[in-house]
Amino acid sequence: MRRPAELRCAPFSWQRPTGDAAPRFVSEWVEVAGEALPACEEQVDVLVWGVPLSRTSISASAASEHPMAFRRLWRGFATYNIDEDVNLAGLRVVDVGDVVEHVTDSAVTHEAIEQTACFLRTHYPEPFLTTIGGDHSITACVVRGMQKAEPSKKIGIIQLDTHFDLRDPAELGKANGTPIRQLVEEGVVSGQHVHTIGLHGFFNGEPLKEVADRHGIHYYTMKQTRKRGLEATIADALAALTTEVDSIYVTVDMDVLDISHAPGVPASTPGGMYTDELLDAVLQLGAHPKVAALDIVCLDPRKDVHDATVKVAVHTWLNALVGLYKRTSGA
Amino acid sequence: MRRPAELRCAPFSWQRPTGDAAPRFVSEWVEVAGEALPACEEQVDVLVWGVPLSRTSISASAASEHPMAFRRLWRGFATYNIDEDVNLAGLRVVDVGDVVEHVTDSAVTHEAIEQTACFLRTHYPEPFLTTIGGDHSITACVVRGMQKAEPSKKIGIIQLDTHFDLRDPAELGKANGTPIRQLVEEGVVSGQHVHTIGLHGFFNGEPLKEVADRHGIHYYTMKQTRKRGLEATIADALAALTTEVDSIYVTVDMDVLDISHAPGVPASTPGGMYTDELLDAVLQLGAHPKVAALDIVCLDPRKDVHDATVKVAVHTWLNALVGLYKRTSGA
Amino acid sequence: MRRPAELRCAPFSWQRPTGDAAPRFVSEWVEVAGEALPACEEQVDVLVWGVPLSRTSISASAASEHPMAFRRLWRGFATYNIDEDVNLAGLRVVDVGDVVEHVTDSAVTHEAIEQTACFLRTHYPEPFLTTIGGDHSITACVVRGMQKAEPSKKIGIIQLDTHFDLRDPAELGKANGTPIRQLVEEGVVSGQHVHTIGLHGFFNGEPLKEVADRHGIHYYTMKQTRKRGLEATIADALAALTTEVDSIYVTVDMDVLDISHAPGVPASTPGGMYTDELLDAVLQLGAHPKVAALDIVCLDPRKDVHDATVKVAVHTWLNALVGLYKRTSGA
Amino acid sequence: MRRPAELRCAPFSWQRPTGDAAPRFVSEWVEVAGEALPACEEQVDVLVWGVPLSRTSISASAASEHPMAFRRLWRGFATYNIDEDVNLAGLRVVDVGDVVEHVTDSAVTHEAIEQTACFLRTHYPEPFLTTIGGDHSITACVVRGMQKAEPSKKIGIIQLDTHFDLRDPAELGKANGTPIRQLVEEGVVSGQHVHTIGLHGFFNGEPLKEVADRHGIHYYTMKQTRKRGLEATIADALAALTTEVDSIYVTVDMDVLDISHAPGVPASTPGGMYTDELLDAVLQLGAHPKVAALDIVCLDPRKDVHDATVKVAVHTWLNALVGLYKRTSGA
Amino acid sequence: MRRPAELRCAPFSWQRPTGDAAPRFVSEWVEVAGEALPACEEQVDVLVWGVPLSRTSISASAASEHPMAFRRLWRGFATYNIDEDVNLAGLRVVDVGDVVEHVTDSAVTHEAIEQTACFLRTHYPEPFLTTIGGDHSITACVVRGMQKAEPSKKIGIIQLDTHFDLRDPAELGKANGTPIRQLVEEGVVSGQHVHTIGLHGFFNGEPLKEVADRHGIHYYTMKQTRKRGLEATIADALAALTTEVDSIYVTVDMDVLDISHAPGVPASTPGGMYTDELLDAVLQLGAHPKVAALDIVCLDPRKDVHDATVKVAVHTWLNALVGLYKRTSGA
Amino acid sequence: MRRPAELRCAPFSWQRPTGDAAPRFVSEWVEVAGEALPACEEQVDVLVWGVPLSRTSISASAASEHPMAFRRLWRGFATYNIDEDVNLAGLRVVDVGDVVEHVTDSAVTHEAIEQTACFLRTHYPEPFLTTIGGDHSITACVVRGMQKAEPSKKIGIIQLDTHFDLRDPAELGKANGTPIRQLVEEGVVSGQHVHTIGLHGFFNGEPLKEVADRHGIHYYTMKQTRKRGLEATIADALAALTTEVDSIYVTVDMDVLDISHAPGVPASTPGGMYTDELLDAVLQLGAHPKVAALDIVCLDPRKDVHDATVKVAVHTWLNALVGLYKRTSGA
Repeated sequence: MRRPAELRCAPFSWQRPTGDAAPRFVSEWVEVAGEALPACEEQVDVLVWGVPLSRTSISASAASEHPMAFRRLWRGFATYNIDEDVNLAGLRVVDVGDVVEHVTDSAVTHEAIEQTACFLRTHYPEPFLTTIGGDHSITACVVRGMQKAEPSKKIGIIQLDTHFDLRDPAELGKANGTPIRQLVEEGVVSGQHVHTIGLHGFFNGEPLKEVADRHGIHYYTMKQTRKRGLEATIADALAALTTEVDSIYVTVDMDVLDISHAPGVPASTPGGMYTDELLDAVLQLGAHPKVAALDIVCLDPRKDVHDATVKVAVHTWLNALVGLYKRTSGA
Repeated sequence: MRRPAELRCAPFSWQRPTGDAAPRFVSEWVEVAGEALPACEEQVDVLVWGVPLSRTSISASAASEHPMAFRRLWRGFATYNIDEDVNLAGLRVVDVGDVVEHVTDSAVTHEAIEQTACFLRTHYPEPFLTTIGGDHSITACVVRGMQKAEPSKKIGIIQLDTHFDLRDPAELGKANGTPIRQLVEEGVVSGQHVHTIGLHGFFNGEPLKEVADRHGIHYYTMKQTRKRGLEATIADALAALTTEVDSIYVTVDMDVLDISHAPGVPASTPGGMYTDELLDAVLQLGAHPKVAALDIVCLDPRKDVHDATVKVAVHTWLNALVGLYKRTSGA
Repeated sequence: MRRPAELRCAPFSWQRPTGDAAPRFVSEWVEVAGEALPACEEQVDVLVWGVPLSRTSISASAASEHPMAFRRLWRGFATYNIDEDVNLAGLRVVDVGDVVEHVTDSAVTHEAIEQTACFLRTHYPEPFLTTIGGDHSITACVVRGMQKAEPSKKIGIIQLDTHFDLRDPAELGKANGTPIRQLVEEGVVSGQHVHTIGLHGFFNGEPLKEVADRHGIHYYTMKQTRKRGLEATIADALAALTTEVDSIYVTVDMDVLDISHAPGVPASTPGGMYTDELLDAVLQLGAHPKVAALDIVCLDPRKDVHDATVKVAVHTWLNALVGLYKRTSGA
Repeated sequence: MRRPAELRCAPFSWQRPTGDAAPRFVSEWVEVAGEALPACEEQVDVLVWGVPLSRTSISASAASEHPMAFRRLWRGFATYNIDEDVNLAGLRVVDVGDVVEHVTDSAVTHEAIEQTACFLRTHYPEPFLTTIGGDHSITACVVRGMQKAEPSKKIGIIQLDTHFDLRDPAELGKANGTPIRQLVEEGVVSGQHVHTIGLHGFFNGEPLKEVADRHGIHYYTMKQTRKRGLEATIADALAALTTEVDSIYVTVDMDVLDISHAPGVPASTPGGMYTDELLDAVLQLGAHPKVAALDIVCLDPRKDVHDATVKVAVHTWLNALVGLYKRTSGA
Repeated sequence: MRRPAELRCAPFSWQRPTGDAAPRFVSEWVEVAGEALPACEEQVDVLVWGVPLSRTSISASAASEHPMAFRRLWRGFATYNIDEDVNLAGLRVVDVGDVVEHVTDSAVTHEAIEQTACFLRTHYPEPFLTTIGGDHSITACVVRGMQKAEPSKKIGIIQLDTHFDLRDPAELGKANGTPIRQLVEEGVVSGQHVHTIGLHGFFNGEPLKEVADRHGIHYYTMKQTRKRGLEATIADALAALTTEVDSIYVTVDMDVLDISHAPGVPASTPGGMYTDELLDAVLQLGAHPKVAALDIVCLDPRKDVHDATVKVAVHTWLNALVGLYKRTSGA
Repeated sequence: MRRPAELRCAPFSWQRPTGDAAPRFVSEWVEVAGEALPACEEQVDVLVWGVPLSRTSISASAASEHPMAFRRLWRGFATYNIDEDVNLAGLRVVDVGDVVEHVTDSAVTHEAIEQTACFLRTHYPEPFLTTIGGDHSITACVVRGMQKAEPSKKIGIIQLDTHFDLRDPAELGKANGTPIRQLVEEGVVSGQHVHTIGLHGFFNGEPLKEVADRHGIHYYTMKQTRKRGLEATIADALAALTTEVDSIYVTVDMDVLDISHAPGVPASTPGGMYTDELLDAVLQLGAHPKVAALDIVCLDPRKDVHDATVKVAVHTWLNALVGLYKRTSGA
């Protein structure tokens, strides 16, 4: 029996419309992969997946609920960006779903994240790989998985963060304070290929600075960044990495943001980055030809105020795609 | 390409699993009708649809967001009810989606609701028809639509409500304070076939009581109800209607609930019904052979506290289905 | 220039309409006394005034904002009560405004409350005097003022409260934990004429029970009250007082309520009275011929959830007036 | 009977004090017009009225509650602005009340708004006309009404907004996404006399840009505005309009603000204007001799956090009046 | 240098005062054990410890923050209970601190809980052992630890809960849905010695009932409990266990409470137990001579509304101690 | 009995660890003085005390709860500041506790504050004296007490504030709007030695400006400050005072902050200072050799959103100490 016109089918509103009208909203534009994923030879520009893990957060967090909250807002965003006069509808974006979380054994979940990243990078080496966390522990898994998929390629990291994330896994396990330490000490990424931007305040013990120095990690406090200019700071990091690595992984810990702009991030504090700075930064990063992947982590939607911070996360992702569009379109 | 086991596909989690395992959660059990609806000759036990209209509420309301909030909680409910030892999985329930709302012209939306109710009743006369509002103005549309579908049948109404809903459409238009007045004065339902249960406090002007008396509407204040017993009060109403009408429509205005149990209902007040009373009442109603339809209205999820009231709404619906199950299974 | 019909004058909506239509809402019905108060010889049934003092609360409180929040809700209440079939519009109620609070010197404010109570009782000995607090310290001032106005009359107190309010003013000053102790030790009211109903839990130190016993204060815990029945308990208290005193003062500390029903009361706890119990109790009290005054205290609107507790306070006041109506109408 | 000094009369606190003391607070300064409005020949500098309509908002909104929330904060604002050393008490401001909203038929309300604007402009052509919304649909009504009152005058519009508000009334009716489209396509205002400032992000579909271009509407994205400077951008717009039109209407859609500064605006997003920018802008606009009217729309007080956004709205209005003061005083 | 009288030392306010005045508040009464614990031969009546683990909760939870929130409220509770006329100050209560949680490896934390419970029971076999969770997974560890300490003793369990907690550890690991299954299948506790009270609604899959039946677990739905009476139901369970086991462990999953009384419990729902019922139940249980231990779990303070639910938890604990007092005092 | 390793003793976590490991968190670093204070001859760099008084606030406030909320966050802050590469662990900081507040008589509390400030300054003239309020009335007491301790020394004040705080104590008593007026009119501080920075908006009546002018108080509006530069404005004030006074008292009324950055301050408004500006300012002030004391006032934790504003307060205090460190270390 055919459905009467008055009855729309709300639960399917995330799917691409079957007609030939161009998508107008992000919820219509992103393809949701079902049981089957795209064939490897198909043209895909961007993959997005969710990693709902936050049991590994040092303090209690519901960042595991972020991937779903993030998608739920898509229906409020157009594909067209008026500031840059760019319509993202020209890119093909596929949502491949969420990693399955083990209820109690985080090691199992970490392994699944790593294997999935490896699988995706192996079968889809070209698309921009975007990961929606979850807490920052997942970054180590994703980078490790990508590295396994393409072992001959050197990966560099640009990290926007309040913290070094160089705490000791021997003490904490593979918690959200440790991913950069894991990657550097395991040799997945060289410390000299890590650029951390946005450190500030009283949230990094002095010994962590020594760890950073020992590994040759590059870092820029928020104050240094503002003095030099965020755009120039990022340009410097990109310039340094561009000759040294094959691909650049960008990790955005949302706690880099000022607490007034990011109420939904447990570790956000005063003195942080503003959202317009972050949005410009990811656009600049997305436009760089070696930037191959991006993650957005440590946003706890339960702490949010009227979805303000989840809106920032969606903007962050879309602005990176605007950068990608400009790169691919030669704009 | 096949999806790796680690990657589940979250956005489809409302759909029935394709394997042969029995559904365990309401989100797996309810069938979501897509572009095609079930064929008329198929066995369906329950239809559920959403009516996201609340522009017609006297005070500002976001009850329009209730249908989606209501469905979102399904994943937290099992199909099995332990109090009654009933597994609803034996019933077939189809979600036919939401009525399309016109952004500014409520008359267009009201017409669409009426037409859709008529369509559904015409093509699916057997299933229990359950409507998730929206504000109380929609009840007049649904009953009118059902009556058009089956013009020879007399409909009676059992209304659980703090208010008479007998205010004058000449003054307010077809607002949420007027549905019973509309139906009675249009002759769709006879005043003597309306039983309103749960009136209390200072929220019905004295003239409305005169309207009720003039039309022979039966009403029971919350105090009278508690003195007589809610179960006996409902039994009386059912007994009266059973000989007089062909089918009974149950409308649950959630403002009948005490404000301590229903923070998400703009008009809820102290002195109202408790949720355990409501849940028993709808089970009793759902079990009666002449009860053919149910709506749940006037719940504004934006006012809710941690989804407490939306949880009550889902329980209300499921408990009515437990009643239906007992009726159909002869239990 | 005359106002066009489309432009209503919202800021005056608390005033009685000038036309001859009967008031339908409490906001239209209550007369707001301006610079001039009613002449003494006029018939007035009820006086209501606000006492916005909460600096004297032991823990920080914004109960000072309650009188205004209380009045703001009047527009949502009809004058007609459907449970009792009583239309309060037959009573004349005058709002005489708020006592001026001194910003830092509570003794000045306490003196002003006492003088105003004395003034009101002197010039208007007949009307039911209803006081909207503010914290519980104000009860001592109001009773003292009434007693000064009519020194030959004995006053008894029925107190609905979680606490004895018998703490020592020598330790705390005239704080909200002390009013009954003040009144009893100053001889304004005899301890034997105080009946405290609703004590429960872990919120009265053992020494306070000794103070109560020493003064012959009658008290009933919440558990005792529920065993005996609240109606019977109140009937006992009224019966005892009716032969011993000339007039009865009812003080409702909203912390007598269970915290699930009174989120806006800083000291409310589990195990307290439910709102339907309270509403029945004040109706019963308001109907007794010797009950001459009522106050409602210790409600902090800033702690409230969607005005739920302020709604309870308005119901409490109106239900007492329903009792008064029944008393005066001989119903 | 005279009122004792201790009893202040709180409910009248919005009225001008009867003594000769200069007003100190905005609540004392603004005159509330009762049944009678000022005679036409009286000197009035500013009219303010409320338009509590938000049923025409695309998503559910309680912006209808903004006019009353806006007035309620007046008591916390002095008439003296220390930044500019200006005392607004020198201006005469009259609050003419709220337009009556029809509960279900928005067309009736739109008509009432238009008629009232026409009435006010006809009888009071000189005062600065300030309108407190409500949603953005009202702007079309107010401008239409003003144009009818003075049909020979050309009106230009400066719009501060995240959105074009050029969506199609044929699709949505006269909803809050459509007012500029209505005015331009009806010929009330020429597209070339519309300057829209502050567009940003992913909230304007590409087709709307084509509508804007087709009509010759001038627009400046937030990024362009920040590059050029907001003051210079506004100066450009004013310079262009000053030779082309007779009077300029300023419409402030509060969603132009960054979400961190405007939690109470449903459509606010990251990347928007900051409040200090907005406050400077309206001061600059208010000071221009052709700026004749201002509205403030799309603020939903129920979404607000501790009245932060309503405070911004009151500042916005007062800062425009500071501009007006400077204009009239020649400062 | 001696401290001036005006300067009190706030951070130590949890400690017992050094003077000889009797403690008045729970915060003064409970002894905080520092580096040294009481000697084994000392008389201790009650031990209380915190278990801040909630990573093992199926859905994200901050129940790990409950032990500290629970203690923080002690300063608001007197040691005297007026309902029962009992002063708990006669009991000696020692707070032995919190178990150290591993940040990522829950198995390590589970082991630490079990070892600590074993240590405490070994060295302090007499005192009533009270555990403040944390999520429900901890119950399995505590009971296992107690059983190891006294392997010859049979333990029975009375569980107040919405859920069976019989889900399969093979699927979930030792998550909060599994503790009873763990204990029964490991043989630590016999299924016939488990009595689960308060099951209700749609939150237990049908297969779990089969697991319960297979193991001979006794269970009572909320409806059955209310029909039989909660006091009688508990008396039955106690009577059955008293002849069969050596000691009874009481576990209170706060989700047994109705959501209107327990906003701070993620899994609470309508249709649950009320707080006065729970408080009576634990008093009855605490008074029984074989009840040796109690835990309180699954309360997430971040979800709470003004500490309402944490207040319930403190009452629950104190009421159990009132029962204990009555038992020991022979009252 | 020795404590097992698994059981940490949470309630003592504010104390300095007994081992020789350097403190890593502020909670470990600050010494909590118990009954005994440090001997006068000991080296102490910083004293911190709490003044939990807010009954003297013009509008209701729970700023009295700030000192405890402020300390509770210490465990989340490292002693190391990465922006300045400074480890505060080199300073000795002693927390001397809270002043005892009288429940109803603020004059008694004010006297206790003054005496305690005098005591501390007398016995510990060297350490930087930092006071955590409470409302702004306390500043007058602290400065008065310091002046009594060292009567020969001239004190200057640098005030960061939205308000002059020059209202008349004759009208309000010693309320939070009056401290500067008290000090200047009593001659404790000369008006010419007061520099008020950050005034803005509509919150200072015109007469207060006349009071400021009459006393020669220096003031800078927020706009003037931003034009001149905040750093330069403060440098000017410091330069002026350095030759005129012996020591400088810095008072930070948190309402100087923009409301988007300080939701927890009742009087904060749009147009205020941003937190990064404030943090730079106090660092600059702390580094000046004549700055001897600092207070932080008017923060109401109950209004705060996820502790955002209390985090700002802790940063403010720590940044001042970073300035002090640089001063003392010659950096």
